[in-house]
Amino acid sequence: MTGRRIYFDNNASSPVSPEALSVMLPFFSEVYGNPSSLHLEGCKAAEAVKKAASAIASAFGGVNPDCITFTESGTDANSLALAGFRKKILRSGRTKLHFITSSIEHSSVLEVFRHFETIGDQVTYIEPDSDGLLSPDAFAAAITPDTVLASVMLANNETGTVQPFLSIIKTLHNAGIPVHCDAVQAFGKIPLDIIKCPADMISIASHKINGPKGAGALYVKRNVQIEALLRGSHSKTLKPGTVNVPAIAGFGKAAELAMLNLNENIRHSLELKKLFLEGLKDAAPSAVINGTLEKSLPNTVNVSFPGLESAYLVEHFDEAGLAVSAASACASSTKGSSHVLRAMKLSQERLSSAIRFSFGIYNTTDEVSAALEIIRNAVNRNGQ
Amino acid sequence: MTGRRIYFDNNASSPVSPEALSVMLPFFSEVYGNPSSLHLEGCKAAEAVKKAASAIASAFGGVNPDCITFTESGTDANSLALAGFRKKILRSGRTKLHFITSSIEHSSVLEVFRHFETIGDQVTYIEPDSDGLLSPDAFAAAITPDTVLASVMLANNETGTVQPFLSIIKTLHNAGIPVHCDAVQAFGKIPLDIIKCPADMISIASHKINGPKGAGALYVKRNVQIEALLRGSHSKTLKPGTVNVPAIAGFGKAAELAMLNLNENIRHSLELKKLFLEGLKDAAPSAVINGTLEKSLPNTVNVSFPGLESAYLVEHFDEAGLAVSAASACASSTKGSSHVLRAMKLSQERLSSAIRFSFGIYNTTDEVSAALEIIRNAVNRNGQ
Repeated sequence: MTGRRIYFDNNASSPVSPEALSVMLPFFSEVYGNPSSLHLEGCKAAEAVKKAASAIASAFGGVNPDCITFTESGTDANSLALAGFRKKILRSGRTKLHFITSSIEHSSVLEVFRHFETIGDQVTYIEPDSDGLLSPDAFAAAITPDTVLASVMLANNETGTVQPFLSIIKTLHNAGIPVHCDAVQAFGKIPLDIIKCPADMISIASHKINGPKGAGALYVKRNVQIEALLRGSHSKTLKPGTVNVPAIAGFGKAAELAMLNLNENIRHSLELKKLFLEGLKDAAPSAVINGTLEKSLPNTVNVSFPGLESAYLVEHFDEAGLAVSAASACASSTKGSSHVLRAMKLSQERLSSAIRFSFGIYNTTDEVSAALEIIRNAVNRNGQ
Repeated sequence: MTGRRIYFDNNASSPVSPEALSVMLPFFSEVYGNPSSLHLEGCKAAEAVKKAASAIASAFGGVNPDCITFTESGTDANSLALAGFRKKILRSGRTKLHFITSSIEHSSVLEVFRHFETIGDQVTYIEPDSDGLLSPDAFAAAITPDTVLASVMLANNETGTVQPFLSIIKTLHNAGIPVHCDAVQAFGKIPLDIIKCPADMISIASHKINGPKGAGALYVKRNVQIEALLRGSHSKTLKPGTVNVPAIAGFGKAAELAMLNLNENIRHSLELKKLFLEGLKDAAPSAVINGTLEKSLPNTVNVSFPGLESAYLVEHFDEAGLAVSAASACASSTKGSSHVLRAMKLSQERLSSAIRFSFGIYNTTDEVSAALEIIRNAVNRNGQ
């Protein structure tokens, strides 16, 4: 399938690297113990989980591995962070809760907050500017005496826009508000000094950085308290249930490699992006970039093709061998245009013709050239 | 590690079969799309998930695959069933809720119910007899006008005791009470006509039947309504978040094989069990079987070694190359004796010396003989 296909949808899910897969393999049929078991087989499995936690902790700039909880996915990590925090803070006797987030968060964050609203909480959704950027001042203005937590994504999954996170977090911390950072799309793609933000909670996911599906992680700073959402066998842990050892082992390796190869991967992504953007001017002269290119993930470009429909383009590109998304994979089955681009107040024409291209470490310049020809054909065929 | 080790802890976690692993492998680095994506890569991933759902549905005796929701684990399936049902029924305006379960359920079920009690629900815990069997009459007697759901395990994970599930469910259904069945330990180990019980919800897990960790499933009958516990990207589904395609594909294959080879696997387990029980009389004359052997999973034996301590035995056996558990893996890090054996009102001596032996499809008669020698040495060394 991958032979002649061009996969530019790495923000939806990326191929597992041979290195991560090779770390995983022994944990299926050889070291198959339950990490909760006390015998050698259990201990070896538990060691693998510990090793992966150390890799993630190192990638976070050397935090304590005990602060890492493995989850099933980025969505799972976001839910645990937000609902787990809420559950805990309710025990302190507080009844009026106010949260701050943005209108361009991933649906897994937005839906948790919408749920909070239905059960009586107040939530402020900060709106981005037309570049998709959030203003620290807007966060400052949103703070009320009831504000208990803010949740802000480091980089947007659809546009790639990287937020002025350090300024936002500084503003919030000055007011004593803890901050959850959804770094699912940013982790492993931009330098550590941004990842090493002083966030109180950070969510990440394995399958976005060439690790396997089935593993995410939530970092929770030592002085921040959250509660498990599910009850289960291991009631002392935040995530009960048998731990997915192979996926976690692969995630650890993927995180290690993402950090090790960060500069080279950024260089590679920027090379592809530059080639793509230059070629696009010729292949689709009327194409418009959504979001700012200056503050953006190296691997992500969101483009509108005015006069064409996103759904048509995704299908046409797919038939021609190019895999891309209209918005995020997580929203692909829901109707309507992207909530992120709508929040940026783009014109209807841009909203309805937007496509996300997200490059990966295995993509090549030849693939970019071939993709540009596919784009040119689609545009020409429709006389745009 | 497995070379000379003897692993009799398959109820904690079992090795992934080569067949299941081989079905999984393409979904790491070749067919790596997000099943939510609309392109070919996404569709191929979605097809794999659909195929696995069909395999599980067939294993359940031909239910509708749409009734299968994949979860992260058995614990996750149990939580979703119980808390998801409660969440939904609260919307109907009911305020007084009563649940019936047993005191020998898996901790993932018991902890959900204990949580329900802390938030005002009433829960009746049916006690087993000294064989670990639950009486249908006790369930009948527990029903109140507020009873909304019962949850009963098909086979106990520690003793292997198989409950008179059809009688229990008939009793409950006669009173209009829906029933959740925790079949995590029974699924794939006993005939389908018991699995194909008319339960309203059924939880199962992959890693107990030589499938990978990271996948469980919940069957929810069409007319039963439950609600997702987590909010997230795919709000129409019961389990939001990126789906763990390789693990689910492997789970499907494992379920298919477990059903295909059921009779052979039962014969094999019973052969090992018979050899073990016969040899045990000689190797450890004072050993006592916990639970009834007549109504028990073919692969499970729970034995007390009066005068010895479980913790000592697990450690000693482990050093000698034999992996077993004192109770369940899920409770191994908690102190004290098994809640299952305590509920059976065993003597303190039997409680403190209990060991679970659980055989798997790859275990051999030679391993049983070798394990019996290890047991003989442990017993002799302590003059029992």
